[in-house]
Amino acid sequence: MKSEFEFIESIRHRYSLSKTGDDCAVLPKDSKTDLVMTTDLLVEDVDFRLDWTTPEFLGHKALAVSLSDVAAMGAKPVWAMLSIGIPKIIWKTDFVEKFYDGYFRLAEKFNVEIVGGDISKTPDKIVFDSIVAGETIKGKAVLRSGAKVGDLIFVTGSLGGAAGGLKLLEEDFRYDFSKKIWRKKLLLKQLQPLPKTYDGQFLGENNLATSMIDLSDGLSSDLAHLCRASKVGAEIFADKIPINKNLSGFTKSFDEKLNYALNGGEDFELLFTVNPKNKFQFENELKNRNFTHIGEMTTNAEIIELTLDEKRLILEPKGFRHF
Amino acid sequence: MKSEFEFIESIRHRYSLSKTGDDCAVLPKDSKTDLVMTTDLLVEDVDFRLDWTTPEFLGHKALAVSLSDVAAMGAKPVWAMLSIGIPKIIWKTDFVEKFYDGYFRLAEKFNVEIVGGDISKTPDKIVFDSIVAGETIKGKAVLRSGAKVGDLIFVTGSLGGAAGGLKLLEEDFRYDFSKKIWRKKLLLKQLQPLPKTYDGQFLGENNLATSMIDLSDGLSSDLAHLCRASKVGAEIFADKIPINKNLSGFTKSFDEKLNYALNGGEDFELLFTVNPKNKFQFENELKNRNFTHIGEMTTNAEIIELTLDEKRLILEPKGFRHF
Repeated sequence: MKSEFEFIESIRHRYSLSKTGDDCAVLPKDSKTDLVMTTDLLVEDVDFRLDWTTPEFLGHKALAVSLSDVAAMGAKPVWAMLSIGIPKIIWKTDFVEKFYDGYFRLAEKFNVEIVGGDISKTPDKIVFDSIVAGETIKGKAVLRSGAKVGDLIFVTGSLGGAAGGLKLLEEDFRYDFSKKIWRKKLLLKQLQPLPKTYDGQFLGENNLATSMIDLSDGLSSDLAHLCRASKVGAEIFADKIPINKNLSGFTKSFDEKLNYALNGGEDFELLFTVNPKNKFQFENELKNRNFTHIGEMTTNAEIIELTLDEKRLILEPKGFRHF
Repeated sequence: MKSEFEFIESIRHRYSLSKTGDDCAVLPKDSKTDLVMTTDLLVEDVDFRLDWTTPEFLGHKALAVSLSDVAAMGAKPVWAMLSIGIPKIIWKTDFVEKFYDGYFRLAEKFNVEIVGGDISKTPDKIVFDSIVAGETIKGKAVLRSGAKVGDLIFVTGSLGGAAGGLKLLEEDFRYDFSKKIWRKKLLLKQLQPLPKTYDGQFLGENNLATSMIDLSDGLSSDLAHLCRASKVGAEIFADKIPINKNLSGFTKSFDEKLNYALNGGEDFELLFTVNPKNKFQFENELKNRNFTHIGEMTTNAEIIELTLDEKRLILEPKGFRHF
């Protein structure tokens, strides 16, 4: 019997549902431009729980997950559609209004036009499908498959925060009733993630990333996806990984915090590789943007090595699978 | 308290979810081409029942409903994405494989490329969101709003068959166990509707339709949508409406059959208007294609008159609402 993950991966692969193996499908638009397209289905009690979040956060996150896919292609988001299914009991409330408030506020922030969608009744659970289109210069969409041996590995922002937020939710902490700032920040990272739209676009427009993926499953899983697509291996350094500082509220243990950063999902940061000849130019960017150099691509196809306390470990994909 | 229909309509309107008021959103593609986009969310036990259909029919219909929206814009379908959510109990079966068989077979028929999608787990019901993109010559997408007073009203194919099929399903008839040809044909019209892709494209490419909509809610409702968008009225003739002949298996009553044709939904035929100056050219098409002239657009904004047995009645939208 296949696991849930294996089953869904096999279907994705078989029917080319994996966005042609990348975060988005790439389609020709005009002589100068490609269109990138993504769709993300989110289901109540699988991808979110109503008692863990607010309608505004949920509307925000519905769009954010797809914007993150577009960012991972180095593309500029342009328009979006949203299909939503809601049970009757929900539409007697102000849920829908607040949900769209969150959705539209994020769309406005990144100047994304809402061009349509669909609404349907459901028997009992909320479901939505978020569709976003972006644009890149023709042939310049950043794929997962472009990393070369020797390329430098970078991540945006900090890692593990969303998994920390999830842990807090499981422990019955809620955003509205949390007083500690670190708890609020971890919960926000889980409930209202901000896609790295500007960073993705910057990397794409300036031809700086040789490959890119968004961190939705977790660093260990998503780096494995990138290695597989690029047919290379990777070496990363535990002490270089930008662990979310708010995780220190939980624990003083470095190993525990590292575990969140390596294997926690839904940070919606970007993982990308850079040709070492651009290293100098890139070091300036590190100061301006929150980019961290965490390792290099290696010849050991599909093997990820983790250097921790002068030991070299093989890192297995253990990221949270959020389907 | 708003009715279900009113609630969903108000949300669609408020958040521009009604595909900007038409069957598809129209977006610029390149200097010569527009892109039309549609998304349709279908939910188990709301839009379909597993014990009424087969996985192949369901896969077919998932794509057909969106192809019909594209046809209604006079556009050529080009690519599609599908998001599907399935409960664990279903993936132990061959449902998914058979579902995609039906989906891909229809895609192949119309040369539609599947570019991606998403798959997710659901707690208990199947859900899918069907996304199709089509192309038209720039500025030539056929809108609901283009009908003028005096334009001739046409429909493709025959009407009421899908509603007849629904009635049979409610009476516990099933496709596989039905022996009578008329029952099989009505059930197929409901379960495996064939979108009028070639007719829609022909009307669009040749600039023949001044307005168009697909018959998903039913003639009385969809003609009302078209009148509202075009700010005109309509007069239709009961004896000209092409009633699905298989409905005679049910009943000899003309009024009863007419009721299916006027108010039954999901036929996925096209309703369109033609400038009377093209009447002569069009009469040739009537012979080649299965188009029927059923009435004219009038000055009585948003009023639909039905001439039946020399009486003139006001037709209210009573079409089947399929959510």
